[in-house]
Amino acid sequence: MEKIVSLAKRRGFVYQSSEIYGGLNGCWDFGPMGVELLNNVKQQWWKNMTYRENVEGIDASILMHPRVWEASGHVENFTDPMVDCKQCKARYRLDVLFDELSVKKKKDVLRELEPGKFEGQQKDDVVVAEFAKRTETDEASAQIAKLLPCPNCGNKGTFTEARKFNLMFKTFVGPVEDSSAAVFLRPETAQGIFVNFLNVQSAGRQKIPFGIAQIGKAFRNEINTKNFLFRTREFEQMEMQFFVKPGTDDEWFEYWRSQRIQWFTDLGMTPGKLQWHQHPKDKLAHYAKDAYDIEYQFPFGWGEIEGVHNRTDYDLSRHEEFSTKSMKYFDDETKEKYTPYVIETSVGATRSFMAFLIDAYREEEAPTAEGGSEVRTVLKLHPKLAPVKVAIFPLVSRDGMPELARKIEQDLRPHFRVFYDESGAVGRRYRRQDEVGTPFCITVDSQTLQDQTVTVRDRDSMQQERISTSKLREYFLHKLL
Amino acid sequence: MEKIVSLAKRRGFVYQSSEIYGGLNGCWDFGPMGVELLNNVKQQWWKNMTYRENVEGIDASILMHPRVWEASGHVENFTDPMVDCKQCKARYRLDVLFDELSVKKKKDVLRELEPGKFEGQQKDDVVVAEFAKRTETDEASAQIAKLLPCPNCGNKGTFTEARKFNLMFKTFVGPVEDSSAAVFLRPETAQGIFVNFLNVQSAGRQKIPFGIAQIGKAFRNEINTKNFLFRTREFEQMEMQFFVKPGTDDEWFEYWRSQRIQWFTDLGMTPGKLQWHQHPKDKLAHYAKDAYDIEYQFPFGWGEIEGVHNRTDYDLSRHEEFSTKSMKYFDDETKEKYTPYVIETSVGATRSFMAFLIDAYREEEAPTAEGGSEVRTVLKLHPKLAPVKVAIFPLVSRDGMPELARKIEQDLRPHFRVFYDESGAVGRRYRRQDEVGTPFCITVDSQTLQDQTVTVRDRDSMQQERISTSKLREYFLHKLL
Repeated sequence: MEKIVSLAKRRGFVYQSSEIYGGLNGCWDFGPMGVELLNNVKQQWWKNMTYRENVEGIDASILMHPRVWEASGHVENFTDPMVDCKQCKARYRLDVLFDELSVKKKKDVLRELEPGKFEGQQKDDVVVAEFAKRTETDEASAQIAKLLPCPNCGNKGTFTEARKFNLMFKTFVGPVEDSSAAVFLRPETAQGIFVNFLNVQSAGRQKIPFGIAQIGKAFRNEINTKNFLFRTREFEQMEMQFFVKPGTDDEWFEYWRSQRIQWFTDLGMTPGKLQWHQHPKDKLAHYAKDAYDIEYQFPFGWGEIEGVHNRTDYDLSRHEEFSTKSMKYFDDETKEKYTPYVIETSVGATRSFMAFLIDAYREEEAPTAEGGSEVRTVLKLHPKLAPVKVAIFPLVSRDGMPELARKIEQDLRPHFRVFYDESGAVGRRYRRQDEVGTPFCITVDSQTLQDQTVTVRDRDSMQQERISTSKLREYFLHKLL
Repeated sequence: MEKIVSLAKRRGFVYQSSEIYGGLNGCWDFGPMGVELLNNVKQQWWKNMTYRENVEGIDASILMHPRVWEASGHVENFTDPMVDCKQCKARYRLDVLFDELSVKKKKDVLRELEPGKFEGQQKDDVVVAEFAKRTETDEASAQIAKLLPCPNCGNKGTFTEARKFNLMFKTFVGPVEDSSAAVFLRPETAQGIFVNFLNVQSAGRQKIPFGIAQIGKAFRNEINTKNFLFRTREFEQMEMQFFVKPGTDDEWFEYWRSQRIQWFTDLGMTPGKLQWHQHPKDKLAHYAKDAYDIEYQFPFGWGEIEGVHNRTDYDLSRHEEFSTKSMKYFDDETKEKYTPYVIETSVGATRSFMAFLIDAYREEEAPTAEGGSEVRTVLKLHPKLAPVKVAIFPLVSRDGMPELARKIEQDLRPHFRVFYDESGAVGRRYRRQDEVGTPFCITVDSQTLQDQTVTVRDRDSMQQERISTSKLREYFLHKLL
């Protein structure tokens, strides 16, 4: 993981936001290589999801009417329990407070809670598990908080009752900062789709079943940002809500599950590092009938990169209730009027960016020109995702080779992102391109001057083939489009 | 203008944000056609600006460290003067207060200010101009406010001294809403480029002169939102900052001016509706040495769609001062160390979307099948910008024509955004595509069944040519890529 974060910075994939000011926690910037990889991930998703007859795209605003978040349930439910220390005014999220307790302190709490039961020598993992069991609900957690000393001032019994802290970022439109002017940065893109359901249906003359897809930023005021791009405050989602007739929802749920996992493997992600996690029935979100996550095996463990959820008619019904506008669909053929069910596929653009980057990272033994071997770092990104498609090297900076190489660069540049490099040994130039995942490197050598052919080196096999310069454009169009 | 707003809603280009809740002022959603047009505008800009050896792309976060906006000058200067009514607590921006005054009230104010001078019968435009002259500075405006009755409670002389209202949206990171946790939604994308200047330069091994380009959202808490997408609270910018050696800045300024105006005309914008506006020397922004805007002739008048500014070394110097990190460039060859000058090209993605849409809108006399004529509404968008590239119609819904048309659809869909339509008369289907600017319509007719050729109809000339189905893909690749 450290190696990847370091490569990401050094080669221009990802920087800390506002790094020169010490960074802003939970926010990241995408550098020259990163923005291309991210854009390619988004473009591949967009093509895959919206180049279909029954899916329309939209791009809704980040700021939305505050009633949207009352209808969606976010104002009430999108919260974490927090406590304040009455003594020193320090403020903590309960789960953070618990995470930071040592095993010894957890044992002390358990002993105080149930005297006699934890007096002997328990194994650490037993203590941790017992403690976790007793902090499963917000109410129990709040009781336990009262037994803890404040990490800041050390006083015990000084915590207030737990209260709900909303994870939406709030701001104010217009000049007056009062509650009537409060709006939120959207915590998910889905609601922009629900509120536009009938507008899109009529403009696109769509019939149920059909879907609406969107890519866009969302924001969550996470207290615990962690694991690089995994849990951040600003992130990008790629969501599709598919509207179906109730009763056909289970079938469409399975259809989209199979479509979505295939998208990752078609783009080269290792199938063995992907798994499905079904939400247990007793832990489903309030709107869900069924929910599966696609998880990727990150260096820090399995983590969700996409959710496929059956959201029922919850969202449309709630918006109908709160807006008093009908959100029902009228079926011209059967003359039925109903509120559609929604199958949602929701993938993190930034999370899948990270998964593709990690999955592509390899350190391999590779032969050197001198007949020995060395370790090469290579990003085996799918050519459609690779930031730079073709690199062009003149073997030496004389004998007309740079001029020929520049001509090839000019021919290809309108079609592909290319990179021209004439500095250093060719082996080193190959390695630099391997590190950013460039699938093809062209070398102009002395034979080129004779017969107008160049070598094209494949990143993964490291094999070279000679190709006529006049055929290069076709060759790459075929390989890359 | 009304016609365009109405078309934009009906055909799925632009909707009011959160429309079912009465909308959110200054925020707009892009529908199925709009998101394609917007993405095409952005993609054309990205290709044009970053498919160059000396321009790198980035994508920085919307939330940035608050010190960024102190360094940039936004905390201090990005303000409008506001007054409160001491009586009823109503709050007004001074320019809004003045805009809403009738000519009669303006005359009253002028008479009170300079007794005797405005006693006679002045023409309305003289009064308006004199009033505008007396409210050019914040100080003078504040004095005049004291002469005005509060529009809310009607009392006169109740306004407070004017104070500065900052146009940045503020929010808080973490659980505590105090000033140490305050951050802003970026009011411009440029600062994300400045703070990453040296990171990008080193990752891209770039030498001065080179540029950094970015597309992204920005937010301004405008009190006066107006003119559809022209002045909004949430919008998207496409910016490029080009770093040059001081002394070469004038030359690069001219280079980018010519590049940028050409971009609009290359994409089909009417040259006669574009003009340059140079900022007068005495009204230049605090950071600027020279500034030109590209203006488009909107139905409501000339309006800025892009700015090309010489920002000097202001931003990098300020960030060096505020972050105490060197922002200087070291020239390997001349061994000089200096702070580069910046030539900025800053175009509104949403504003240029609107300009392209308006510029493409035509109502034309067109012949009908019966030999008469009718008015057709057509969006003459450049094929690269058009949301749908090819529409496919079977002439009738029988005789195997739909099956053949579907086969053509499947061949083309992986490469282009296509639309299949078999409902209604062909003439009506053509008109529907004209309205959203689809450049090509394919019709499968009885001759297709005989010789495997189809008609391809050109949107602008309305001419049809017969093309073999086996050559369609090549034909469109040639026309559209």
